[in-house]
Amino acid sequence: MSDRVRIGKAYDIEPQLIDNEKAKRVQKRVLIGRAMGAENFIMRLFTVEEGGHSPFHSHDWEHEVYIVSGEATVVKEDSKEVVTAGSFVFVPSNVLHQFKNTGKGNLEFICVIPNTADEE
Amino acid sequence: MSDRVRIGKAYDIEPQLIDNEKAKRVQKRVLIGRAMGAENFIMRLFTVEEGGHSPFHSHDWEHEVYIVSGEATVVKEDSKEVVTAGSFVFVPSNVLHQFKNTGKGNLEFICVIPNTADEE
Repeated sequence: MSDRVRIGKAYDIEPQLIDNEKAKRVQKRVLIGRAMGAENFIMRLFTVEEGGHSPFHSHDWEHEVYIVSGEATVVKEDSKEVVTAGSFVFVPSNVLHQFKNTGKGNLEFICVIPNTADEE
Repeated sequence: MSDRVRIGKAYDIEPQLIDNEKAKRVQKRVLIGRAMGAENFIMRLFTVEEGGHSPFHSHDWEHEVYIVSGEATVVKEDSKEVVTAGSFVFVPSNVLHQFKNTGKGNLEFICVIPNTADEE
């Protein structure tokens, strides 16, 4: 529960750094999460450094994504598509997907997930 | 239900223009909504022209907002705060709020609401 407006700057939040076999050069920041009182869905900002990428995977919750800056190649099950700032991407549950930074400089995107997801 | 990734450009969507007693110079675009298969939450992009504003109001669903560009003055019940690109705003349910474009040029922000909201 929360009873007041909460405001913050994304880059004031310490990122979780993700760099492993499946994902490379990814910074994840939970902007509005369970701790803030978000009861239904969680807003995160991902910053993917040049050449980095999220894992190619699927899971039983959806993503609603808005590309804030940079260029992403969205890898789908059987094709891929390049998107830039101002594009949105809806990834339904259980659909394979990956975001690759195939541009210059950072890729930034907002990614919203339901509160029922196994992550934040 | 949806079983594939959906991609689009926000400004390819025809906006709903909102200009009445309570809101001025607002363009609303539903990026990912019920028609696309969004089951839990809905992603919209608001473009508020210079001098425009959303209504000062409250409702029984929350907003999760990310400022994409421009400058907003967030009006709260008893105070206000200026935010710019890269800021997030969490408006819990039943909390008074308003977004005013108090900068130069357009203000753009992503605003996510739950599927239970009385709007899209």
